Amino acid sequence: MTGAPLFNRMALIGIGLIGSSLAQVARQRGLVNEISISTRSPATLQRAEELGLGDYYALDAAAAVEDADLVILCVPVGANEAVAKWIAPSLKKGAILSDAGSTKESVVEQVSPHVPDGVHFIPGHPIAGTEHSGPDAGFSTLFDQRWCILTPPDDVDQEALQKLKTFWESCGSDVDLMEPKHHDLVLAIVSHLPHLIAYNIVGTADDLATVTKSQVIKYSASGFRDFTRLAASDPTMWRDVCLNNKEAILEMLARFSEDLSAMQRAIRWGDGQMLFDLFTRTRSIRRSIIEAGQETDAPDFGRHVAGSPVSSND
Amino acid sequence: MTGAPLFNRMALIGIGLIGSSLAQVARQRGLVNEISISTRSPATLQRAEELGLGDYYALDAAAAVEDADLVILCVPVGANEAVAKWIAPSLKKGAILSDAGSTKESVVEQVSPHVPDGVHFIPGHPIAGTEHSGPDAGFSTLFDQRWCILTPPDDVDQEALQKLKTFWESCGSDVDLMEPKHHDLVLAIVSHLPHLIAYNIVGTADDLATVTKSQVIKYSASGFRDFTRLAASDPTMWRDVCLNNKEAILEMLARFSEDLSAMQRAIRWGDGQMLFDLFTRTRSIRRSIIEAGQETDAPDFGRHVAGSPVSSND
Repeated sequence: MTGAPLFNRMALIGIGLIGSSLAQVARQRGLVNEISISTRSPATLQRAEELGLGDYYALDAAAAVEDADLVILCVPVGANEAVAKWIAPSLKKGAILSDAGSTKESVVEQVSPHVPDGVHFIPGHPIAGTEHSGPDAGFSTLFDQRWCILTPPDDVDQEALQKLKTFWESCGSDVDLMEPKHHDLVLAIVSHLPHLIAYNIVGTADDLATVTKSQVIKYSASGFRDFTRLAASDPTMWRDVCLNNKEAILEMLARFSEDLSAMQRAIRWGDGQMLFDLFTRTRSIRRSIIEAGQETDAPDFGRHVAGSPVSSND
Repeated sequence: MTGAPLFNRMALIGIGLIGSSLAQVARQRGLVNEISISTRSPATLQRAEELGLGDYYALDAAAAVEDADLVILCVPVGANEAVAKWIAPSLKKGAILSDAGSTKESVVEQVSPHVPDGVHFIPGHPIAGTEHSGPDAGFSTLFDQRWCILTPPDDVDQEALQKLKTFWESCGSDVDLMEPKHHDLVLAIVSHLPHLIAYNIVGTADDLATVTKSQVIKYSASGFRDFTRLAASDPTMWRDVCLNNKEAILEMLARFSEDLSAMQRAIRWGDGQMLFDLFTRTRSIRRSIIEAGQETDAPDFGRHVAGSPVSSND
């Protein structure tokens, strides 16, 4: 995994879970010589410095990207355009500019117009993360055996693309190439809809008058708690995702609601066969995910260890 | 935890995840002298015998409950009435009859009329389980630090109630008493709705033409896979839950759908503040569940261990 560094200087704009994990894996595997870090919050920047995540720290994003060969925007997608405008004049000729945002069409629209000639803009999205956020949440193995999707423009510089691909592979990921629009559709179903549904159900439970919050908490091992993990994700990041992948998300929400109405009707009219058939076919997809190495086979996500306080559903 | 056995003979009707776990914990902690097991499938009964879960095995449920001081129905709730009719004439005077079903009003309605005088019928529901089913899925610590809800009738024999309570406490659980109707409402939100939503979203993804199933599987670590655990639960059990807790489930589904429409509208009209507020308040409920000892604090349910192939979302 080690060898000559791929880049001399990497600049990370934003140092939350993703930025912090990138800094740690790049350092640990010798992928870059120097890391410069910028974020808009002085407290977060100070924390990044305390954690020793980089070599240079700047509140001024433009200063952070000077002389960088690789710049990765690790901010909520709603902040990309402002950051792009800010750093554009300071980007080095020949540099690769990428990002880690969960939507790609919006990033292309908002960032591309500001990218100077001679800078290679190749949007990206590592399919990795946890429900925790901030620089303390990062860890160097976050990208191991995960996918990273790149959405290069048609006229991309092949050498730059190959270099960025090698970078992500060295971070532990497999790289896929995709059209931005298709990326947004895929992510709407595998990521955005699940998060929104999780936020929604936790909100519904929180609002009930007939069942107290303490009852919801006490008996949450019966299923509810699984949803609270996604619903504990970063609110700013997810607000921005909703605002920047509106069409695909609304399309998936509409389909989900249609299907939910059909299920509701089956329950109301006692159509046990319809329910049984649906509940049966959904089993196989989990099996496939486990076989693809994207999920653990242990019951309860492996939460249940003998003597451990956590487990179960029903 | 050990001492004199609480019951001489325990009969388990149904030997899936719950029955098998009860057999193992009762044996291991010396809670009963003898265990008799009955289930309608010869193959399952044979497997239970191979696993050494009991002392007596019978396809005839009536034979299994003869001489039992404690009888626990561990079958899908839709089977309770037929089983109750079957075993009623063979129940011993003074025996405690209980169950482990996820709905309680239906069980009271369907079982009570068949319970002979002198038998103490006290419905129960251990809030414990995993997505796996069958006798092989059981384990002795399943009930540790979980809640068990009992819904005794108003004129319950206090001695019998106390004995059943002690049994569940010896299995590792905390016991709560509740009205059947309220139990069904609480479980509708903490368990039934989450399972139905999970089944539904996995079904929606499975039906898409624009995103392939292999893409859903590859990128599932971005959120989707969390839902597949609940959606891998036992289809028969969940069909029966839907058919036997119809009113409460439809009420919770209606509230969930209303809230989802409001969220959809906020996304359509770009109401970032509404989204941010919702995404913020749902965070605290997870914190409370972790503090109540009902969930792990580790990111990603602890799935992500350095070097492990499983982790992440975003």
